[in-house]
Amino acid sequence: MIQLVQQESDFEEEAFLFKMFGDPARLHILYLLAEQPGQLCVRDIEEEIGRLAQPSVSHHLGLLYRAGLLYREKLGLHIYYRVKPAVLKKMASILGVLLASANKG
Amino acid sequence: MIQLVQQESDFEEEAFLFKMFGDPARLHILYLLAEQPGQLCVRDIEEEIGRLAQPSVSHHLGLLYRAGLLYREKLGLHIYYRVKPAVLKKMASILGVLLASANKG
Repeated sequence: MIQLVQQESDFEEEAFLFKMFGDPARLHILYLLAEQPGQLCVRDIEEEIGRLAQPSVSHHLGLLYRAGLLYREKLGLHIYYRVKPAVLKKMASILGVLLASANKG
Repeated sequence: MIQLVQQESDFEEEAFLFKMFGDPARLHILYLLAEQPGQLCVRDIEEEIGRLAQPSVSHHLGLLYRAGLLYREKLGLHIYYRVKPAVLKKMASILGVLLASANKG
């Protein structure tokens, strides 16, 4: 049996990252930002998605930014976003640990 | 620019998997099941976690099972659970696609 030493606070922190991916609109935004890193502002994202109004896109971008998932940069009048690769790597490594354990069973 | 062709329903389906990991109690349960695949029933999990009552553990196990994340097997009086490796792999591959895109930017 593998012992995965985890604090309760680790579960909260890790679960929070997954929760950020756990909404279809946010996941769509994350895909767009990953496809075109640093090239999309809120209006571009609104246009790409179509079904989400700008306040809703802004809300999700704010959540993702405050959750530490995004870099943002102001250029002229607009703010452009990109996904932090380190966050994606952290989540992938959590899944990797779980998969390694699950496969040993 | 990489085009990640996605249907709206894909986002819903994928986001739902991440949402299942987006709760600290469920994530804790997933870690335990990955560590000891097929060896834990609801009471074992309750004992391991401590701070969650059995109805709450049952509720989360039910959610995870109906979401397609778990196998379950009845042995004697108890039901034992294990995490489906395919689900972990699918989520890891979503993160891999996002990471590959994000790194190219």
